[in-house]
Amino acid sequence: MQVADIAVRVEAGTIGREMHQFVTELYPICRSLTGDGVRETLRRIGQHIPLTIREVASGTEVFDWTVPKEWNIRDAYVKNSKGERVIDFRKHNLHVMGYSVPVRQKMLLNDLKAHLHSLPEHPDWIPYRTSYYNENWGFCLTHRQLLELKDEEYEICIDSSLENGHLTYGECYLTGETTEEILVSSHVCHPSLCNDNLSSISLAIAVAKRLKGTAHRYSYRFLFAPATLGPIVWLAQNEAQTARIRHGLILACVGDPGKTTYKKSRRGDAEVDRAVAHMLKHSGQDYQINEFSPWGYDERQYCSPGFNLPVGCLMRTPNGCFPEYHSSADDLEFVRAESLEDSFNKCVSILEVLENNYTYLNQNPKCEPRLGKRGLYRTMGGQAHATSNELAMLWMLNFSDGKHSLLDIAEKSGLPFPALRQAADALREHHLLKVQMPEVQIAGSAESASPAAAEKSSEKRS
Amino acid sequence: MQVADIAVRVEAGTIGREMHQFVTELYPICRSLTGDGVRETLRRIGQHIPLTIREVASGTEVFDWTVPKEWNIRDAYVKNSKGERVIDFRKHNLHVMGYSVPVRQKMLLNDLKAHLHSLPEHPDWIPYRTSYYNENWGFCLTHRQLLELKDEEYEICIDSSLENGHLTYGECYLTGETTEEILVSSHVCHPSLCNDNLSSISLAIAVAKRLKGTAHRYSYRFLFAPATLGPIVWLAQNEAQTARIRHGLILACVGDPGKTTYKKSRRGDAEVDRAVAHMLKHSGQDYQINEFSPWGYDERQYCSPGFNLPVGCLMRTPNGCFPEYHSSADDLEFVRAESLEDSFNKCVSILEVLENNYTYLNQNPKCEPRLGKRGLYRTMGGQAHATSNELAMLWMLNFSDGKHSLLDIAEKSGLPFPALRQAADALREHHLLKVQMPEVQIAGSAESASPAAAEKSSEKRS
Amino acid sequence: MQVADIAVRVEAGTIGREMHQFVTELYPICRSLTGDGVRETLRRIGQHIPLTIREVASGTEVFDWTVPKEWNIRDAYVKNSKGERVIDFRKHNLHVMGYSVPVRQKMLLNDLKAHLHSLPEHPDWIPYRTSYYNENWGFCLTHRQLLELKDEEYEICIDSSLENGHLTYGECYLTGETTEEILVSSHVCHPSLCNDNLSSISLAIAVAKRLKGTAHRYSYRFLFAPATLGPIVWLAQNEAQTARIRHGLILACVGDPGKTTYKKSRRGDAEVDRAVAHMLKHSGQDYQINEFSPWGYDERQYCSPGFNLPVGCLMRTPNGCFPEYHSSADDLEFVRAESLEDSFNKCVSILEVLENNYTYLNQNPKCEPRLGKRGLYRTMGGQAHATSNELAMLWMLNFSDGKHSLLDIAEKSGLPFPALRQAADALREHHLLKVQMPEVQIAGSAESASPAAAEKSSEKRS
Repeated sequence: MQVADIAVRVEAGTIGREMHQFVTELYPICRSLTGDGVRETLRRIGQHIPLTIREVASGTEVFDWTVPKEWNIRDAYVKNSKGERVIDFRKHNLHVMGYSVPVRQKMLLNDLKAHLHSLPEHPDWIPYRTSYYNENWGFCLTHRQLLELKDEEYEICIDSSLENGHLTYGECYLTGETTEEILVSSHVCHPSLCNDNLSSISLAIAVAKRLKGTAHRYSYRFLFAPATLGPIVWLAQNEAQTARIRHGLILACVGDPGKTTYKKSRRGDAEVDRAVAHMLKHSGQDYQINEFSPWGYDERQYCSPGFNLPVGCLMRTPNGCFPEYHSSADDLEFVRAESLEDSFNKCVSILEVLENNYTYLNQNPKCEPRLGKRGLYRTMGGQAHATSNELAMLWMLNFSDGKHSLLDIAEKSGLPFPALRQAADALREHHLLKVQMPEVQIAGSAESASPAAAEKSSEKRS
Repeated sequence: MQVADIAVRVEAGTIGREMHQFVTELYPICRSLTGDGVRETLRRIGQHIPLTIREVASGTEVFDWTVPKEWNIRDAYVKNSKGERVIDFRKHNLHVMGYSVPVRQKMLLNDLKAHLHSLPEHPDWIPYRTSYYNENWGFCLTHRQLLELKDEEYEICIDSSLENGHLTYGECYLTGETTEEILVSSHVCHPSLCNDNLSSISLAIAVAKRLKGTAHRYSYRFLFAPATLGPIVWLAQNEAQTARIRHGLILACVGDPGKTTYKKSRRGDAEVDRAVAHMLKHSGQDYQINEFSPWGYDERQYCSPGFNLPVGCLMRTPNGCFPEYHSSADDLEFVRAESLEDSFNKCVSILEVLENNYTYLNQNPKCEPRLGKRGLYRTMGGQAHATSNELAMLWMLNFSDGKHSLLDIAEKSGLPFPALRQAADALREHHLLKVQMPEVQIAGSAESASPAAAEKSSEKRS
Repeated sequence: MQVADIAVRVEAGTIGREMHQFVTELYPICRSLTGDGVRETLRRIGQHIPLTIREVASGTEVFDWTVPKEWNIRDAYVKNSKGERVIDFRKHNLHVMGYSVPVRQKMLLNDLKAHLHSLPEHPDWIPYRTSYYNENWGFCLTHRQLLELKDEEYEICIDSSLENGHLTYGECYLTGETTEEILVSSHVCHPSLCNDNLSSISLAIAVAKRLKGTAHRYSYRFLFAPATLGPIVWLAQNEAQTARIRHGLILACVGDPGKTTYKKSRRGDAEVDRAVAHMLKHSGQDYQINEFSPWGYDERQYCSPGFNLPVGCLMRTPNGCFPEYHSSADDLEFVRAESLEDSFNKCVSILEVLENNYTYLNQNPKCEPRLGKRGLYRTMGGQAHATSNELAMLWMLNFSDGKHSLLDIAEKSGLPFPALRQAADALREHHLLKVQMPEVQIAGSAESASPAAAEKSSEKRS
């Protein structure tokens, strides 16, 4: 089985349901930048795909940053004078500001208010707030709750700990025919928020799970790490190996009902940028492609100028562009099985393009080869139009001059990538096309770059 | 006389009538990939322009192809039980599928039907069908005829021969001031079909005939050859000489009343592509420019990756885009004298651009030269606008820095090429412009590339 | 004080009034290509800014040109048979064609008419005409005046002199931190015409006056010279020094109420072209950007191919595009204080961009630096959007890779240049950005190109 077959072989609806199920399973866990919520999340991911878990000690220096203390929380509440929990962490993880220091004290409403966060424009939603690097504490609550608080004394309890410990992340590495890598990165630090970011964890798992059973040219690295600091730690620890990363996708917000949005890598014309654009253009659905900007998800790190990796970001509605973003309304209803499945299919289509985007050489470049004698062409002449198969073969032959990859030809011809790939397969079978040898050996991936391997791998496929 | 004068010197209507007359003369001849129909066509072309006829034996290997047996036909019919010819080759050449093998037998309608071709959507038209490389036979007929055939036994006769012989083509070579060539290519294998392709044969003749009487910088090669295999044979036999081809035009479908369409060369930015685009933009008529695709006419061979010649295709309505295409409705009424003449004028305008597209050097590049003292500029100042002559001279002077050809300046300025050419002539007379020496000598055309020759040729003109 | 502060520090309206006042002062002087009108104009300019006045003798050869005789005029009239001045130079400078030779004679109306110029389509306006290089004489008058002239004998007097003398121009040079120059050029040869060209003289003075009091990286050369021949003379005399000109602006027609128009330099992508485009895009006003053409103002000389200087032309309504152009209707009412002030503000904004368009190097290019610990970033996380300060800093950090100047980043991000400049200042203060060393030493400006100087200059600023 190869990547192209993944989507085909699964009954419609199955993957979406499976993905939504996994979102539901992870929803109650209270994740943060560090701590047991992340550990538990990674443990459960590891039940589905092979996962290596890594821990980095508090105080470790990574580029301009330092791994902070580990935060864990057991309970938190605000009790009114009657002893009732008017804000209760046990009811929703978002009620406590992430990284709140331990607190036990009594306060009048007026003083307490400086520590309360609500969304007046969405009075029934609890906002999501954190204070990772500035020691502080706070509660988040619905604006309706806030207005109902009486002017009395409250008992405040945050039963958390902020101590030396570790930052935890997980990697799933799938060995391919070459050591060249495709990086798929998902953050895992958000507590009970579904689109951002349980949807993308669930998508990464679903893709990794299926890739395991297929032949793939690239090796894959699925990274599950807390946002910002996770990739910074990973990049600091794997700086030399980043040269192997040929393509990358950050997954985020892939479960809402909005149209698919792709944010280009900093390079703007990376192969992955073009592969996604091609896939979206032929998807038959509305979509949006945004230029790179240094605000958003972990592209802020992967695409920092010192790395400038070819990593784009696949989303549906982007961060900050749906009202439910970073609030309790980003819940199990907000993400849909259909949307998750559609994101899965698109992700697989992108990988299919990247996996098969070889540059071929026409073995018969002077005039057209006679396709008819090979059974690849009509026997009777005079008709007004070529069949789509014939057209795809003619495009492949005419532009397989060593300067155009299959994706280049797809862009030039307007034909869908899979049609050209099939034409290329047929022509290769008749020795009319051959995979081009790469001009430059890539250090550290000599094996992967050998044309023999490429030919071998493509022969397996046909 | 020079190329620019061709269109001017002929009375409107004359050339169109002459071209239509030639279409009429060639219409009854039954052409095919090989055979006496092509020979007779070339003989008649040779009555108007100097033509070298070449024959290539059946069995000759040309790249991936082999020259097939020669096909000739004398008669063909289907007779009903009363002995009436219900399908009769003598009534229309299209009634027999090209390259039909000899047949003499009786058949019931049901068996015969497998060999009958009609166009249900155009019940009065006879389709055009061939089977060059697969031994087969067939009749083409109107759908109305087909429906009228009774369920009885028919007598089938195809009095053809398919034997070792030759493929025939013709070349008209007009020596210019240099050995650099402009290739004009027309296919000659279609039987009684007027727009595709008698119109283009007739255009090529009309242009070649007039070029003979003019001074021209380029040598011209007019190729009259059967489609696909003709150019393949020519390219195989003249591979080394293709380096001389600076520009090329395939002519096809140039007689219908539709707007002019140009299909770019594979390069997409060849000088001929830009010359045609410029001419069309200033034509004052609607037009269409299409990107290259590897489906159509003989650009499939000239623009195969091993040659990649700068050859575009000049048409009116393209192949497959008019309903009459490849049917008996592509007849003497379908092509119009006015359309033929308009195509002639456009073709000559393109050649005028190519012939005169020199790069000049401003001999006085620091500040403007004083045009007034040379009588080239107004004597009184203060008016709001420059005259068009003044503007054209200022554009030529400002951009004749050795990096901009006359066509570059035409594109930049929005002024028509002929106006700039006249300005260049005036400035050259006053030694303010000089033709730039080419930087690189082109192998095999040392004489042609000498700047002295270029200057000489341009001096002749002024 | 630096360039960015100029516009801020002046009360709205002040500069517009001052500029209009200067237009009013210069309006009555009869300027021409040479003569005392230009001298008097330069003398008055010199009362506001330091001006070096240069005289070049008649007969001096400059490139393809020769400095002509000097022209001066004292009086001119046409008297009717009653001795009344029916055309009177004392009433309007435009009544006499510039460079009219001395005349004293009697003529019948019919003969006189060959020397009379009017505008039938604007019967109340006097046209502006000159005859610099062809000895001639003439009167300009309203078409209404012309129609009223009776068929009688007239007494003609032009009390002018055309003798060996000088062409006069002025330069104001303001030394900056480097010897690299910004050229600002204004023609000074038009008599009583306000938009073309008193408005631009007045703008150049206003800008030069304020620049004197600021720290500026570039040296500035303000050139006040007669159109065409003035720049030709200057270029001939300063050919070697033109290499110092990094950017240039021709000012013309900057006082009318129309939208701002910028005509690009011949290069089309010069830094000044991009700086103006950026400023206009963020101006919140309608505007127009035109491609270069070799017709207009002194860009015809600066942008001749032998110089090809990066000089654009800043205007409101361009030459020839307002009906009042080159007529008596281009008067003190036609130019407005508000328009003059708006042009001033735009001009200063352009200089602000050019002055500050450094390329920076992110000192911490691997992953984002932790802005929070430097007090440059929010302490609480979770909000949907970055503040504009944060965004500007992230853009600066991400693209300060040595390949993107501040203006490049402004174009890429869509953020206004001043916001990015402030972000750059803050980041430089925290040693997160550093000005990039130029790769190549520019001959003759070793001092200016030293990165130390650049750093020093930018430190002064912060």
